Amino acid sequence: MKEYEVVIIGGGPAGLTAGLYTSRARRTSLLIEKQLVGGLITSAGWVENFPGFPDGVAGLELGELLHKQATRYGLETIIAEVSSIELSGEQKVIATTEGEFAARTVIIASGSERSKLGIPGEEEFTGRGVSYCATCDAAFFAEQPVAVVGGGDAAVHEALDIVKYVSKAFIIHRRDKLRASRILQERAFAEPKIDIRWNTVVDEIEGTNTVKQLKLRDTVTSEKTTLEVSGVFIAVGFKPNTDFVKGLVSLDDTGQIVTNEHLETKIAGIFSAGDVRSGSGRQAITAAGEGATAAIYAERYLSG
Amino acid sequence: MKEYEVVIIGGGPAGLTAGLYTSRARRTSLLIEKQLVGGLITSAGWVENFPGFPDGVAGLELGELLHKQATRYGLETIIAEVSSIELSGEQKVIATTEGEFAARTVIIASGSERSKLGIPGEEEFTGRGVSYCATCDAAFFAEQPVAVVGGGDAAVHEALDIVKYVSKAFIIHRRDKLRASRILQERAFAEPKIDIRWNTVVDEIEGTNTVKQLKLRDTVTSEKTTLEVSGVFIAVGFKPNTDFVKGLVSLDDTGQIVTNEHLETKIAGIFSAGDVRSGSGRQAITAAGEGATAAIYAERYLSG
Repeated sequence: MKEYEVVIIGGGPAGLTAGLYTSRARRTSLLIEKQLVGGLITSAGWVENFPGFPDGVAGLELGELLHKQATRYGLETIIAEVSSIELSGEQKVIATTEGEFAARTVIIASGSERSKLGIPGEEEFTGRGVSYCATCDAAFFAEQPVAVVGGGDAAVHEALDIVKYVSKAFIIHRRDKLRASRILQERAFAEPKIDIRWNTVVDEIEGTNTVKQLKLRDTVTSEKTTLEVSGVFIAVGFKPNTDFVKGLVSLDDTGQIVTNEHLETKIAGIFSAGDVRSGSGRQAITAAGEGATAAIYAERYLSG
Repeated sequence: MKEYEVVIIGGGPAGLTAGLYTSRARRTSLLIEKQLVGGLITSAGWVENFPGFPDGVAGLELGELLHKQATRYGLETIIAEVSSIELSGEQKVIATTEGEFAARTVIIASGSERSKLGIPGEEEFTGRGVSYCATCDAAFFAEQPVAVVGGGDAAVHEALDIVKYVSKAFIIHRRDKLRASRILQERAFAEPKIDIRWNTVVDEIEGTNTVKQLKLRDTVTSEKTTLEVSGVFIAVGFKPNTDFVKGLVSLDDTGQIVTNEHLETKIAGIFSAGDVRSGSGRQAITAAGEGATAAIYAERYLSG
């Protein structure tokens, strides 16, 4: 079993910044990412609010820059899924699809995943019209009408992104006003290709080989309608990635990891940072800041 | 009196990131900086640990990038010194050397300044051999011997920076080991131009027009010696910039501003972020993360 001084779970801005700091502190550090280094920011398309990039930066590129920087100081990275963390005295043993690793300190920065609607047709048509990542899939729907389900920043952001490709983007929102930030709302209202359907939910996604139409319901009048679209982008929230720590650390009622102000969980030597942490700001820059903070306190734990 | 929705005090990474976020939220925002936009990071020379810059970035350039980005979304900036904040109902009135401004929300990100030694000669020779900013002044001491007083990250960083210019850099440290991070210690030990004087304090700085020598004292043996140097860089800690809020918000025993986890002070609508805040990480990236967090909660306060 290979040993490190620090194991970091998750390769988004929080995990990569933690790795940058622990590597610069000359601690042997392994980062375990299950899919794509960069984390959720890689699906963000264009990022305008990460400080240091006045002209913005592609989410995918930002992820690569963070990874390159941490790697430069010695951070190792593997692609593997973590199944559990077990305590063995002061050591933490991390079981993954690529074997077991041990470390005195663990920084959990496993982020969150997009929530699903849980309606008929959603699973059936995933990858055949149903998508959770506009940046990845918008180009498949050139000059066709699509729907974006949700009313938060992510949903409006996705709608604004995909109008570059599609003929029309309907935002399907269950409430009568958006939760998105003002600047995004203003842009959405000013975009002629965006049509917002208020007080509306999707009951079913229908199609043959691919998506053909949505069954909609008005939440006020209960009126049922159909909407012909070729694609549906679902942006209705996030689910923290904490399956591998259930019963080990404390979770809040949304399933996020509870820490103290030093970002330490109730287990000495296990820290948490970024979207998976209770109270985190759900921004790349706040995640990066938390990654640095977790690394600083992990260093104190190791040298204490 | 000009009114804004947000006034930000301090133009370092915390204040500039706060301004980026409040401006993007379409809130009229004024940033008040007393000296140089960019804050303390501008004196950092080369910054290797701000995520997003694999090859590093000059501190001065990083400050400019952050400012350019926030300005792009509408942040206004003035150079002025804040003397007080007074409450007038829900409005906060900020008195400065450039007049008064009012806002419903204030984000205090005024950072900290380097501490002084408080010894004879220090004030007399400031600007004539005594410096608190190696990056700014190192080039003045080409091929001459200098001293750096202190043993933390800042002191060792300065010593490593200035050896590019000077003939010799003595680190004068009152303890028998450095508080600097491992990576910096290793570099200092490996640098032949750096000579560390352990258990040593400076009692006096002597010279004629400019610095000529230091009176040193061994803290263990009490032995007194002199050391001929042309310059002294003082890096012995920081003092938070809070003179203008004394009696208004709560300060901890080091003089830093106390906030809750939403970075709000005890006064509703007044937030704090970065080096001036109690518990802050004293890193550009943690300050930037806190700036974003303060801005997000300021936005909630304004729209609530």
